[in-house]
Amino acid sequence: MKQDEQRMSLSSGRLRKAPENFLDREGIQTVKMQAGQGRRDFIRGAFAAAATGLTASATRSQGNPVPSEGGDPNILNLPEHSRALGQGVVTDGYGKPSKYEANVQRRQSPGLTQTAQASVSFSPLQSLFGIVTPNGLHFERHHQGWWDIDPSRHRFMVNGLVSRPQVFTMDELMRLPSVSRFHFIECGANTAAEWGNVAVPTCQYTHGMLSCSEFTGVPLITLLEIAGADLKKGRFLLAEGGDGSSMTRTIPMSLVRSGEVLVAYGQNGEMLRPENGYPLRLVVPGVQGVSWIKYLRRVELGDQPWAAKDEAIHYLDVMPDGKARQYANLQECKSVVTTPSGGQVLLDKGFYNITGLAWSGRGKVRKVDVSVDGGRNWRTARLETPVLSKALTRFNLDWVWDGKAAIIQSRATDETGYVQPTYPQLRAVRGTRSIYHNNAIQSWLVQDNGEVKNVQLS
Amino acid sequence: MKQDEQRMSLSSGRLRKAPENFLDREGIQTVKMQAGQGRRDFIRGAFAAAATGLTASATRSQGNPVPSEGGDPNILNLPEHSRALGQGVVTDGYGKPSKYEANVQRRQSPGLTQTAQASVSFSPLQSLFGIVTPNGLHFERHHQGWWDIDPSRHRFMVNGLVSRPQVFTMDELMRLPSVSRFHFIECGANTAAEWGNVAVPTCQYTHGMLSCSEFTGVPLITLLEIAGADLKKGRFLLAEGGDGSSMTRTIPMSLVRSGEVLVAYGQNGEMLRPENGYPLRLVVPGVQGVSWIKYLRRVELGDQPWAAKDEAIHYLDVMPDGKARQYANLQECKSVVTTPSGGQVLLDKGFYNITGLAWSGRGKVRKVDVSVDGGRNWRTARLETPVLSKALTRFNLDWVWDGKAAIIQSRATDETGYVQPTYPQLRAVRGTRSIYHNNAIQSWLVQDNGEVKNVQLS
Repeated sequence: MKQDEQRMSLSSGRLRKAPENFLDREGIQTVKMQAGQGRRDFIRGAFAAAATGLTASATRSQGNPVPSEGGDPNILNLPEHSRALGQGVVTDGYGKPSKYEANVQRRQSPGLTQTAQASVSFSPLQSLFGIVTPNGLHFERHHQGWWDIDPSRHRFMVNGLVSRPQVFTMDELMRLPSVSRFHFIECGANTAAEWGNVAVPTCQYTHGMLSCSEFTGVPLITLLEIAGADLKKGRFLLAEGGDGSSMTRTIPMSLVRSGEVLVAYGQNGEMLRPENGYPLRLVVPGVQGVSWIKYLRRVELGDQPWAAKDEAIHYLDVMPDGKARQYANLQECKSVVTTPSGGQVLLDKGFYNITGLAWSGRGKVRKVDVSVDGGRNWRTARLETPVLSKALTRFNLDWVWDGKAAIIQSRATDETGYVQPTYPQLRAVRGTRSIYHNNAIQSWLVQDNGEVKNVQLS
Repeated sequence: MKQDEQRMSLSSGRLRKAPENFLDREGIQTVKMQAGQGRRDFIRGAFAAAATGLTASATRSQGNPVPSEGGDPNILNLPEHSRALGQGVVTDGYGKPSKYEANVQRRQSPGLTQTAQASVSFSPLQSLFGIVTPNGLHFERHHQGWWDIDPSRHRFMVNGLVSRPQVFTMDELMRLPSVSRFHFIECGANTAAEWGNVAVPTCQYTHGMLSCSEFTGVPLITLLEIAGADLKKGRFLLAEGGDGSSMTRTIPMSLVRSGEVLVAYGQNGEMLRPENGYPLRLVVPGVQGVSWIKYLRRVELGDQPWAAKDEAIHYLDVMPDGKARQYANLQECKSVVTTPSGGQVLLDKGFYNITGLAWSGRGKVRKVDVSVDGGRNWRTARLETPVLSKALTRFNLDWVWDGKAAIIQSRATDETGYVQPTYPQLRAVRGTRSIYHNNAIQSWLVQDNGEVKNVQLS
């Protein structure tokens, strides 16, 4: 990883080191002392710093009624934004984040792949809140680059073991009964580098091939019924994407029959983004991202798995005996602490809100335990509601840091009773030769200087 | 409303009139016939249109292995995106919607206010799915314009009936225990023009001062406890914004004690947007938007309501007897059909998914009934889950349009048993002189030519 990339991810952490982005400790004490002197003094003190560099000519030249320098010092010290006209509505018909959030970006891990068209960008999990991933920060995984396909020309076909093969336009799909559901999507290769003891520095790079959205679309089973699918013979679907990678994946009809699998056009309230399959993608809740076919143009109903290119050569788990585990599509229960996490710096001793994400491809998260001593003692975290099936769950836990080195971990349990494994437990079953489906417990070392690092406990 | 504005909102509707944006009926029939001829023929036929204008020199000049014109016609007819390299990852570290969605914008209603700094932009509800409003399309209401405030210089004070007045930096707030919750926010003046029988053409302009997000922040009660609040004497809070409008609002402590009121920094997974109060805003679930103070810099605990400027002069309901109803902050149960809605055009007879939004400031939506005959007969719509308290709820209902004129309405009932009123019912209580708090049933007329118009039934 290049040095500048690393620095950028450090500064995008929420717990920034003073005084680079925030007041230093002396500044905070000054403001607090001023606050103790009463309200008027406080307002002057608290905003004095904010006015620095903002009392310049710009405001006056706009003709606003700003008092002269000999006027009321309380008013003079107010920041410009408290005494002048701001910007008007619809400066952007489609708005953007604050300029102060420019470091909160999805990022490519340099050197991970040879070309940007067959690569990955990672979501900045360390900077996110709640469970929704903003569409602009959704992780990307492309096999032959992304396209912005004209929806008026896009078609979706249903064929195979059906009595009435169908071709749908987008208009036709959007007239059909739709559902909206929150689900996580995780690349099967998320946390892949950790198999080989590579301590990737930040949770953006360890776990950032993970996002969660509200998806809207038509249940695939509805479209199969319209096509007169033979639901007795038809046990597996082939889903095919419209981009040049010819991505095809086998989807078991057992998942489709429940109504969970969607032919989706909406994501977080708006149309899918081009990088994520606009105008149509398959949503396969609980299953690894590669099966969520983007630019979806066809499903074919058949009676056996297809062993497609990306099922026969890639996305296989090499087991300790050298055999390949195939069609292991489900993302098992997993969690990660996002703050404090690698690359962040704790400013000071005292109270912190430990927070992170948990998820399971098998349903709801039942509980998350958190340790601050490398797994000797565990406390149960508070889960934010609603806890949804096959969606991210946000957890929070109070913690008072005593300034000594600490190892922070989270361990999720899902509604089936499955418990997220340690690395030794995972390796005992899966060995060390895998790339995919690493759901082991992540450890973050908080050093006594406040710096947080990725460590792996053997 | 200017003609060009109107046209833009028409074309941003999802049900576009052929052939402007989508295939016409003949085109659809052609594709379907080709599909019936077998799979290879289908692929050629279905994508022939898509290849139009895309087989130009761009691809060949990239040196991709595209067959010559004398080659396999099936391959030749594939669109460029199925045979060439697309764009790489992180084209945008913060991504954007498809270029084909450029008309999906928040819009100012021309002539509504004198200056853009004291104005409104409306969310394009007719183009949205599910319950999440993308931050870029969140409605705006400014009283003196918006600012992008440096979070490292922003301060938040708690004073009044407290034993330890506090000043918090953003860093300090973000270390405290946080919660994440989905809530709607609606301007008290939403649907205001309808009081006076002004049939605003689209649901963007009738109901678009409405959005819903996952908010993350610290419960205000936590900050009051840190400040040693006198929770016996302290019955009302003054909340104060940091922009030039000096917006101050009274918040009853009865709402704060429940833990619902948040001092929020996060919205839909990322930091608040500048137009919506970055870096800090008050979240007051169920209450009209004006009380969700943006650029929040202070709360003061007191023992009586403040009768602040925007409580004594604005945001009052003028009742039939000429008296003003004050402190009517709560947004009562309400709903609106977003498709089909004003400005959209139904392409053809046949099946449609009627969809819309329902909400209540008093808790959860219990049910939504939908009528297609102006209120004579009602059917109960399907509610998307999870149904959350004081959040938007998406409803859907199957409908087969027979091609004749129809009047579509929705009527929501909340968990308290309150039923959304008709206009006659609302006017019987509230008269006709109000601006704020119109929650009457909305009617959309589908004409026999498919055009949908706003009508008001007396």
